[in-house]
Amino acid sequence: MSQPAHDLQQVLHHDIPLTREMGLEVLDWQAGALRLRLPLAANVNHKHTMFGGSLYCAAVLVGWGWLHLKLREAGIDDGHIVIQQGQIDYPLPVTTAAVARCEAPDEASWQRFLAMYRRHGRARLTLHTSVANAGSEAAAVNFTGQYVLHR
Amino acid sequence: MSQPAHDLQQVLHHDIPLTREMGLEVLDWQAGALRLRLPLAANVNHKHTMFGGSLYCAAVLVGWGWLHLKLREAGIDDGHIVIQQGQIDYPLPVTTAAVARCEAPDEASWQRFLAMYRRHGRARLTLHTSVANAGSEAAAVNFTGQYVLHR
Repeated sequence: MSQPAHDLQQVLHHDIPLTREMGLEVLDWQAGALRLRLPLAANVNHKHTMFGGSLYCAAVLVGWGWLHLKLREAGIDDGHIVIQQGQIDYPLPVTTAAVARCEAPDEASWQRFLAMYRRHGRARLTLHTSVANAGSEAAAVNFTGQYVLHR
Repeated sequence: MSQPAHDLQQVLHHDIPLTREMGLEVLDWQAGALRLRLPLAANVNHKHTMFGGSLYCAAVLVGWGWLHLKLREAGIDDGHIVIQQGQIDYPLPVTTAAVARCEAPDEASWQRFLAMYRRHGRARLTLHTSVANAGSEAAAVNFTGQYVLHR
């Protein structure tokens, strides 16, 4: 695991103790994309699929983590990231470990977000994340989150 | 606690083990409204407020539990309840224990939902739930969920 990915896992486990109970792991941070993993056992429901609440946590945290890492790269370390709104769809059940993924938004949105934060100390960014069964490309969860960064 | 409320807590803790780690409790089931409680400690983040993922879990589960209890009252015990979509807003932070609440949808929607399920073995219901700081009436979380009931 890269150092930023390792550090992010420490941050998540320290800042949000429930992520340890859930067995959340950072898989990788490569080419501007972040992936997290949740095991099935700690997050299962009685139908042996993953609890929809755990899937939401994976989806919201991969966006939070992506933003945390990108801000660090941009030299911003005085901001607090808060989730303001979320929209989640569950097209498929998750019957294995879950892999959550967040990629960069378009570059123009990202630059507007950074400029807004540097000028006003507060900015809002929409991120799209997804969760799939481990080893599959098909999205089992689609998530859109509005994240606010403030000083 | 009433017998149905007690039974629901057993069902949630048994079916979704993570709810035990979260310290989820059923508060009461009265006049067609269900309330659940989440303690802050097991669900805290580094800002000493409740993790947004835990708040989502409380919001989605109070809807699930409400539907579970109402179906039991309606004599339907062969259905599986699945969350299909969710929309969540976080207008206020939660700095204490959280109380999640679900009330009945309008009676016409409920009757349509029951009739659809009895005829087709599958039906969809929209429920609005909220989460507040313990002792407060102000919604800290507003949630709208689309739940599917199927045989």
